[in-house]
Order: sequence, then C-alpha cells, then structure tokens
Amino acid sequence: MIIVLKPNTKKKDETAVLKEIRRLGYRPHIMRGVARTVIGAIGDEQKNRTLEALNSWTQVEQVMPVQKRHKLVSREAHPNNSSVNAGGVVIGGKKLQVMAGPCSVESERQILTTAHAVKKAGATILRGGAFKPRTSPYEFQGLGEKGLKLLAKARRETGLPVITELLSEQQADLVAEYADILQIGTRNAQNFQLLIAAAKTGRPVLLKRGLAMKIDEWLLAGEYVLAHENPNLLFCERGVRTFETYTRNTLDLSTIPILKKETHCPVVIDPSQGVGRADLVTAMCKGAVAMGADALLIEVHPNPTEAWSDAAQQVSLDGFGRLMDELKPFIAAAGRV
Amino acid sequence: MIIVLKPNTKKKDETAVLKEIRRLGYRPHIMRGVARTVIGAIGDEQKNRTLEALNSWTQVEQVMPVQKRHKLVSREAHPNNSSVNAGGVVIGGKKLQVMAGPCSVESERQILTTAHAVKKAGATILRGGAFKPRTSPYEFQGLGEKGLKLLAKARRETGLPVITELLSEQQADLVAEYADILQIGTRNAQNFQLLIAAAKTGRPVLLKRGLAMKIDEWLLAGEYVLAHENPNLLFCERGVRTFETYTRNTLDLSTIPILKKETHCPVVIDPSQGVGRADLVTAMCKGAVAMGADALLIEVHPNPTEAWSDAAQQVSLDGFGRLMDELKPFIAAAGRV
Amino acid sequence: MIIVLKPNTKKKDETAVLKEIRRLGYRPHIMRGVARTVIGAIGDEQKNRTLEALNSWTQVEQVMPVQKRHKLVSREAHPNNSSVNAGGVVIGGKKLQVMAGPCSVESERQILTTAHAVKKAGATILRGGAFKPRTSPYEFQGLGEKGLKLLAKARRETGLPVITELLSEQQADLVAEYADILQIGTRNAQNFQLLIAAAKTGRPVLLKRGLAMKIDEWLLAGEYVLAHENPNLLFCERGVRTFETYTRNTLDLSTIPILKKETHCPVVIDPSQGVGRADLVTAMCKGAVAMGADALLIEVHPNPTEAWSDAAQQVSLDGFGRLMDELKPFIAAAGRV
Amino acid sequence: MIIVLKPNTKKKDETAVLKEIRRLGYRPHIMRGVARTVIGAIGDEQKNRTLEALNSWTQVEQVMPVQKRHKLVSREAHPNNSSVNAGGVVIGGKKLQVMAGPCSVESERQILTTAHAVKKAGATILRGGAFKPRTSPYEFQGLGEKGLKLLAKARRETGLPVITELLSEQQADLVAEYADILQIGTRNAQNFQLLIAAAKTGRPVLLKRGLAMKIDEWLLAGEYVLAHENPNLLFCERGVRTFETYTRNTLDLSTIPILKKETHCPVVIDPSQGVGRADLVTAMCKGAVAMGADALLIEVHPNPTEAWSDAAQQVSLDGFGRLMDELKPFIAAAGRV
Repeated sequence: MIIVLKPNTKKKDETAVLKEIRRLGYRPHIMRGVARTVIGAIGDEQKNRTLEALNSWTQVEQVMPVQKRHKLVSREAHPNNSSVNAGGVVIGGKKLQVMAGPCSVESERQILTTAHAVKKAGATILRGGAFKPRTSPYEFQGLGEKGLKLLAKARRETGLPVITELLSEQQADLVAEYADILQIGTRNAQNFQLLIAAAKTGRPVLLKRGLAMKIDEWLLAGEYVLAHENPNLLFCERGVRTFETYTRNTLDLSTIPILKKETHCPVVIDPSQGVGRADLVTAMCKGAVAMGADALLIEVHPNPTEAWSDAAQQVSLDGFGRLMDELKPFIAAAGRV
Repeated sequence: MIIVLKPNTKKKDETAVLKEIRRLGYRPHIMRGVARTVIGAIGDEQKNRTLEALNSWTQVEQVMPVQKRHKLVSREAHPNNSSVNAGGVVIGGKKLQVMAGPCSVESERQILTTAHAVKKAGATILRGGAFKPRTSPYEFQGLGEKGLKLLAKARRETGLPVITELLSEQQADLVAEYADILQIGTRNAQNFQLLIAAAKTGRPVLLKRGLAMKIDEWLLAGEYVLAHENPNLLFCERGVRTFETYTRNTLDLSTIPILKKETHCPVVIDPSQGVGRADLVTAMCKGAVAMGADALLIEVHPNPTEAWSDAAQQVSLDGFGRLMDELKPFIAAAGRV
Repeated sequence: MIIVLKPNTKKKDETAVLKEIRRLGYRPHIMRGVARTVIGAIGDEQKNRTLEALNSWTQVEQVMPVQKRHKLVSREAHPNNSSVNAGGVVIGGKKLQVMAGPCSVESERQILTTAHAVKKAGATILRGGAFKPRTSPYEFQGLGEKGLKLLAKARRETGLPVITELLSEQQADLVAEYADILQIGTRNAQNFQLLIAAAKTGRPVLLKRGLAMKIDEWLLAGEYVLAHENPNLLFCERGVRTFETYTRNTLDLSTIPILKKETHCPVVIDPSQGVGRADLVTAMCKGAVAMGADALLIEVHPNPTEAWSDAAQQVSLDGFGRLMDELKPFIAAAGRV
Repeated sequence: MIIVLKPNTKKKDETAVLKEIRRLGYRPHIMRGVARTVIGAIGDEQKNRTLEALNSWTQVEQVMPVQKRHKLVSREAHPNNSSVNAGGVVIGGKKLQVMAGPCSVESERQILTTAHAVKKAGATILRGGAFKPRTSPYEFQGLGEKGLKLLAKARRETGLPVITELLSEQQADLVAEYADILQIGTRNAQNFQLLIAAAKTGRPVLLKRGLAMKIDEWLLAGEYVLAHENPNLLFCERGVRTFETYTRNTLDLSTIPILKKETHCPVVIDPSQGVGRADLVTAMCKGAVAMGADALLIEVHPNPTEAWSDAAQQVSLDGFGRLMDELKPFIAAAGRV
C-alpha cells in the first residue's frame, strides 16, 4: 500500500498514520517528496488487513494498493494458456469453438432442428436456456428440467456437448447432470454463492461479465471458481451497459487482449447479447475471431420472430450458415482452425 | 406496440408485417404519415407475445412498446403510499426512519456498543452484515449465523429491529428467523431466485438498486416480491456505477421523486455505499431527507479504521451523533418527524 | 510519481527504469516490498515531465501520480470560500441565489413576461439563451444578438442581472457586452479556447460539467479560467450521462460537498437539464439547497408546451412560484436566506 | 410523433392533447388499444415543431419520435458508400488506409523520422498534433503554427498527406492551409461552431466521437458538416467513457457495422485513444480491419517514453512495423488491399 499525506501535515498526524500502519501488520517506509510525503506500507496486502480506512483520515490524501488481488486466475500463477475440455471439445486450443443455439429451449422440434443445423454449419457446442432469468416475473421463465432433457436428447442425436445457464444454487446438481458447461449469467456474475455451487459440481463454468463489472472484479469472480478447486473456467464477454441505446449493450472486444494478458483462462465472446441485434452479429464475430477469441457463443433460432425470448438478437439457421462461411478467412488469418 | 416501417417499404413487405402482428395475437392499425408508415398493434402487451422480433426485419425501423411492464408495484395499482412494518417500526409513514450500524458484525462488543450508541443518537433500526458478499474470495465473508445471533442479542438489549443481508436462497429461512428486514444487495438485485426466496419468508424485503439497473428494471425486480405475495417491499437507492472515480458510486437522488411517482412502496437511501466516503455522508443525508426519502441506511462503526470491511465509508459513533443533529432542521422542513 | 515494478523484475530492467526516472528530472527512491518493488520518483510533477509513459514498459505494472493537478481553484490555494459578484448579486454568500428564465429567448413578450414573473417569485438573476447549441443543424439555433438585446431590455426593466450562454470564441466580446455571467455549456466544457476567450472578457464564468466529465477534469477546466486571470468562476452541475433513460441525465448532487471540499469557488445546480423533466425539478432543488448549493439555475417558461427548445423540462410561471414557496423551509434549514 | 396517453385519461384531457397537436402543425390520428390510447401525429417532424413538450403534460405517458433526424449523412439520402479524397489518398475505397504519426509534433527530427518510418511500414497518411487540447492548462499545448510547418515539410519529403487537429474557429483557415484533413477532437465533437468553421474550409473533416456521444448525436454532428456543403466527412470512433478503468476508454467497434448501415461516410478507428495502452493497439486494429473499417488512426512515436503527451498509448517505430505486418492477413481476409 502507498499512503499519500496531504501537504503540510503536522508531525503528530504523520506519527498517527505510521502507528496505524504498524498496528495493521505493515512496516512503514517514508519518502519525502517535493510537495507531498508518501509512505510505503511494506507487507503482504493479501494477508494483512487493508489500509483503505486511512482514506477517511483527514491528513491522508490517497491510499493506493500495489498488489493485484487475483491469484489463481492470473498469468503469474499459470504462465501458459489453460484449456477447458467440455464433453470432448477443447476450448482454448488451436480450434476456434462455436457454441450456437436458441436463447431458450422451446420444444423438442425447435431444439433438435437447431442442433442439427448448427452442427452442419460448423458449430461444435449446443447452447440453449432451460432456466431463464427474466427481467419481468410475467415473462417466459424457461421449460426447466424438461428443457434440460431436451438438450440431452439433442446431444445424443448430434454428439454436440451442451452449455446451459445455472440460475439457482439449489439446481446446481440437477443442471450439472445434464450440461457439459454451466453458464453463469451477467445478472449473477457476482452471485458468489452460485459461483461456489457451480464450481463444486466440477463442470466447466462459463462466467459472463456483469453489466457494469470492471475487469478486476471479473477476474476476482473467476477466482471464486478456481479457489473452490475447479480449474475449468471460461470468461465470456457479453457487452457492458453504457449510455448508448442503439445497441442493447456495448460489446467490449478489448477484453480479448486484456484477458489474454491477465489470465490463462480461455476467452469466449457472446455477440448476440453483446449488441442485441441479429444484423450486427456477423461483424462482431469477425472482430472477435481476428482479436484472438477462443470461442463464440451465438444465439440461433429456426424462426427468430417466433422466439419466446430475445427475438431481436437471434440469427436464423440460414443466417448462421452464412455467418460461418464469412468467418472462415478470419479464422485462417488468426491462425486458428 | 408501435411498429415503424422504413420509408418506401414495398406493399408485400408491409403485408408480411401485418400478418405477423395478427399471428401473435394483435390487431394491426395502420397510420400513413408524411415520411413513414406506422402500425399500431392493438392488444394486451402483458398477455400477448412480444413483437420485438420485428426489430430484426429489414423493412422495420423501430418497434416501441407502449405499456409499462410493472403492475403490482405501480401507483396505478395502489394509488396511496404503502408502508412497511418492521418489528414495530413503520417505514413509509410520517416518521423518517434511520437504519444504522456497522457494515459487518465483527464481535459482540462491537455490535452492542454500536447498537446502544445509534439508538441513543436517534436510529430506529439496527443494520449489520452477517453474510457478506465480497469481491474477492480472500476477503472476510462475515460471521454467518454467529453474526445473526449477535444481532438478535443487540435487538433484545436495545429493542431496535434488525436489517441484515440475505445472500443465498438456502439461507432464507435462517436469516428470516433472526432479521426483521431482509436486505437484497446490489449484486443480487436481479438474482430472481433469491428475490422469490426472500419474498416467501413473508419478512419485509429491502431491494437495493443494481449497479447498472434502470428504474424500469428495478421496479420489475420489486414486482417479483409482490407477485410472490409479499407486500412488504422497500426500494433502496445505493448509487449506480458511472465513469466518476472520486466517489465509489454515483448516488442518484432523483430516484426519490421518481419512485414516489411510479410506485407506492417506501423509498430508502443508502448514502454510505452511495458515495463510499464517510466525509460526504452527512451532506447526502440532508439531500435525501429534503427530497422525501422515507428512511436512511447508514454505516456506523465504533472505530472505522479498524473495520473489517468498507472502512472508508463508515462514520464513527460521534460522527453519527453529529449527523443526526444536523439532520433535524431538514427533517422538520420536510414535514417529517 | 509512484512506479510499481512487476514481481521478479530483473536487475537490468530495474536499472533502466531508475535511469529513465533520473533522465526526466526526478530522484528515484526504492522500496522493496514483500511482493513488489515500488519506486518513488521524487520531484515536482507539476514542473517535470510526466512518467506515465513507463506504463508501457514491460517491467512496469503501474504508474501512479501523487500530486493533484489543479492549483488555483483548489482549497489549498484559497482556504476561504470565494464569492462572485454578478451585476450586484453575490453568489457564494449567505443568500441562496436563483437564476431563472427560459431555455431560449423567443420574443420580447416572452422574456419580459418571464423576467417580471420570476423576479416577483424571488429569482435574483435572469437566464435565457440567445445562442443555442443544438444537436441537429435543423433545430432552432437561438435569436442571436437580437436575443441578447432582449435580455438587456429585461434587465433594464427588472434590474435582474443576466446569464446567457457563450458558444463561440468570436462572440466572446459581443456576449460579454450584454451578459453579467457567461455560461459555458456542457458540450463546450473542455473547449479550452472558448474557456480562455470567456476568461479574458473579465466577466464571471459559469462552467457547466461535461456530460462525462470527471471531477478532476472539471476542476482543471475551471483552472483554465483562473489561470487566465479571471477569478470569477462558478461551477455548475447539470447532470452526467449514464445508462438511465428515465431522466435525461443523472444529476449528481454529491458534487456539492465534493466541490465545497476541493475548491473555493461557488457551486450552482441546474436541475432542469439535470433531470430533463419539469415534474422532478422541485424535488431536485430541495436536495440541492439542503446540501449547500450556492445557487440554482432553473428553466422557466410562460407556456412550456410552446417552448422552442427543451420544452419538457421547463416549469411554468405558476409552477415556479410554487417551487420558490416550497423551497423556503429548506433555505432556512440550510442557514441561508 | 406517437403520443401515448395514460390509462383512464378523461375526454377533455384527450381533447386538449389533440388540439395542441393540431396547433403545432400535425394531424392527429387516434388508436384505442386495450390498455392505452395512442395518438399518431401525422406530419413532417423535420419541418414542424417538436411535440416533446407534451411529455410534461400530466395525461401523457410517453412521446416517441418516429423519424430519424439525420438526413444528408444517411444511407437513405446516399445509398452508395461515399469516399473522401485527402491529398490524393482515397478513404472509403478498396484500400485500407493507415494514418500514423505522433500524438504531438515535437521537433523537426521527431516528425521527419516518424514520417519516413511509417511510410516505409505502409502508412498512407501522416498524423501529428500541432494544436493540442490538454486537460490541464499547465500541460504542453502543442507547437502551434511551427508544428503545422513541420508537418508540411514532412509531407514534402514523404508525399504523405497530413491530418491534424483543429481546435479553434479562428484557426480554421490557418490549419486548412497546411492540412489535408482537419480533425475534430472528442472534446469538440459537439462544438458546432467549430464544425461549421471546419466545413467551410472545404477540407475533409474527420469527426471523432464524443466521450459520451450516442450514435444518433454523432450522425447529427456530422450532419452539420454536410449541411454546410462539405461532403468530405469521415467518422472516427475513438472510444467512449465507461466505468472501466483498465483501459483509458472503451473502444466501441460495433460502430463499424452500425455506421456502415446508417451512413454512407467512411469509418475510421482510432485504437490508440480507444484503449490508451500501446500493448493493446495491435489487437484492436485486427478487430477493426476484420469488421470493415476504412482506415486506422494510430499514434506512433520514435521514442514513446519521451513523448510530450499521451506517452502510454504510442507505439514505437519498430512496433508499428510489426503491427503492419500482423495486419496483412486480416486486410486480405476483409477483401481489402
């Protein structure tokens, strides 16, 4: 920790700060600058108590931490890329993986039609929501366990592993029984009890970024998964909330190089939630692939205008086929297959 | 729903839109304007399927809902103010209620000292966290059930009802056993399973606004509580996340008149989380009281610099006494007691 | 400046950093911590070149400035409150000043009617736009010099000093000839050439906060005025842009105590732009007064629905009278007159 | 315009709205829905007065415009892509153009060295700031006209056209004398007087997006240029301000497909300002190229750590060479040269 004192701080006020630093387990180190006195508090910030309370002392101008707070997800802890095996499909390797399917599982016909079509077009993982978090209590909340069974059937028929959202700690075991990857949605990105419950199933966990989540907080939320002894973590950027209203969210593609620098975990991009408009999805996918994403998560529906949720952002089966074709040169340019 | 077609839309493309509108249960009504054709879709948006998928049709420029989505929390449904009785203390009546106490319950001595002191200074409800959601898995997570027992002891000694945070569906009954008000924190503001679990306990629920939650979404999250037959709902503004870094959050006091207009439920302001700096709390309280808040939620600690969490934003016992004194003229000016 | 090195930095990479620090005029001071080495660069950050480029060096984890960048606007430079005399009305003294009038000057009748009415209701300064910055080139751009002359006439008739917006460097002298206070609008808050031109007229300058302007940047924009030898500076909060769409902007009332702490200059609140809805203006004013604002800037129009700009946010003459009545107890509670 | 009335609006209140609609030049058209009455106001929103003031009428729930406000910049007005010729270099054609150079022109040696190096690496336009908008009045403000002359010299030596920022209306002719493209910076994106002055020079204008500027506002700011009879407009995304602090701004690459859809004008991406960190620039460029950007604007400096401004975000000459090499496969994949 670095503590900056206000100009002209009296000796006794400085002494009080030094005493407090020592009391909390640090060794103070004074630097007298031209305009300010700065105190370094030597000690392990991850073990000792935080000194941030000094911020409220009148003689203190700023308190600045110097250590990063994430450990297990960091590149320092694991310099090589890690990869996640989900039902035989490896995310984080040379192959760009594409997770595709409807926002919600609606019927056997809908999910099977979609599964076969996306597989044919090149998708390697099937997505579909069985439990849906909906802004209003009066909107369709998903088919629940019936939806999970339909996903399992689609997996049997196509061989595609399945990713689906986990909404409730109490359903962790149930969802893990059917899913190859557990998705933690943006609204639950800091629902730490849910993250722990997901981690404990041992299944790969795909952690979406919260609507207003800083990179640092996202890495720490991921830390909850690794700290509960589940190394199979995927970070998924899905857009953050800004002032812009043209798109549903602002998809922050800079997270790809940032996460690649800060963490060893694979990076997934969800352009469908990210922009919330089917007409922009292909362009966002091109950017994501070029920038080094390990996987894409794309909403595809046999008839988007009939979708029971998020209709505006789902691409059609034909549209998905064209998208996959258009991506090919960029996958090659990125050195992926 | 209002559907705006693009200029120069062909007859057959218009017909397709009309057909889709009918298929989803609405009656189309055409208005031909100077530059655009606009179609009203007559029907109940709360019962019929949404038409938002039309947004992705190439001939459609905009789809605009005309109905509000919240019902039970709305002023239309309940024109008079509602009030919430928490252990005998009425929030939403003439008296301004003050909920005060530490961010986290740390020890018997800490919570009892605080409880007596805040009561003496005029607080009417005791706050204190037993289960703490922490950004990092390595930070203090609260005393758990032991903390709840200490809060119950403080209630016995002082008579102050208790508010504490609920973090997990699985702990809803446990926390409800000890608490007079269940707090749903900002990170769980759209954790709908937790909202339902809290609602089902029958205890009053204080719903904090999410970090990037629009008013409309907040009202709908509250709707989850009322729709699960618990009428005892409090909305609590605690700051939203913006680009500003001087304060921890940006406390949006305009929510007071807005909520008073849109909903009948009482409005609580949390200036401590809202600005994250003890030195600004008194000023924020003055504004909140003047603008019509029904209650304040203030973090108070016997020794803020020793606090185990959120040290920078907790006011001291003396500071809280001065704050309560300074508020008096504004409480009177607002016609409260 | 504080420079944090990455863990396990090699000796030669550390030496390179030390050399660079010396080259740019600072004296390095090394602190070896448990997990990181931290280097203090001793020297005047306001005189020497910035070290921020070190951020891009691979061995550097963070570079943190320790000095604040504003000088003349700071409390350190001028511990007492300053006040601004605008045509005989003192802003920043015991009296709460109220600037009221239409968004745009539209006609002689409109501005004179408004001026007399707002004066009668207690306003002390007349506002009105003659040059209007409009998002679209096809919207009404103001009456220009004719508008200035009408404002001058209203001043002669009522004795109220006048505040109006300055849009262009080239009009600085023209506008200063008619206005008692020059308003710099939110879109020009970092138009430094305009700030300098305004400062040089010697007139008081009211500097609105930019749409996405941090406190620190706002203080520095104000610094441009004082650094060009004009001490008559007013800071005016008018809402920042966030994700919320219920209000036009999010009025950040925490700026009142923050500015009071950081600067000696008077603080003005503009609730009309701040929320963009006439029905919320009174509540926002109550909060602003309670929190210590020195003045309010309120849009008032004889017939808001006929206004040529920003119709939704202007209050009627009657509405303004009621607003002023409702404010009285809060003005008294705040110890103002 | 669409006006939504509140439920249970009385006949006389409805009649008042209809009368007002007629008074402002529109023809009202009533639709009675299940829960609301909706009134279409038929008429040209670009010619008639706005009805937005109805928002403040108590019987009105919402007022929604149906027409877009931009005209000349829109695809509707000009279905084909337009291109801009800047000193012989065509932006918006098949070739991806790269504008590269230092943030500020600092010396003859610095700008000439950079110009030769970036040309060799494949840049086609030279950038460099002569007039610099700086957050603090105490920071380096650019070499001014001397800087312009150095840019002109670099153009003579290398043949590269020059882009540089225009800060002041009063300098429009001066800067236009030396520059092939006038840059309007983010802080001046809604400085309409400056936009008009720039347009009138006849030089191509590169309009950066404001820090918190919606797409709609950006298009309208561009409209100011075209409406003043200068068709040579470039839109440049350079990141918006969000809550994230890891990067300086959040570069919104979704603007590429959005602008391509809404406007015919070429799209430029500035990754240097966009992320503010040299280590992320290459990745952002890859994404921009893949998504269809017409040009890139990249800060390059012979010795970034010695730069007089924005040191952290400038890439070195060698780094720029590597960046250009790494882009090649993505330029090809995008069908550009």
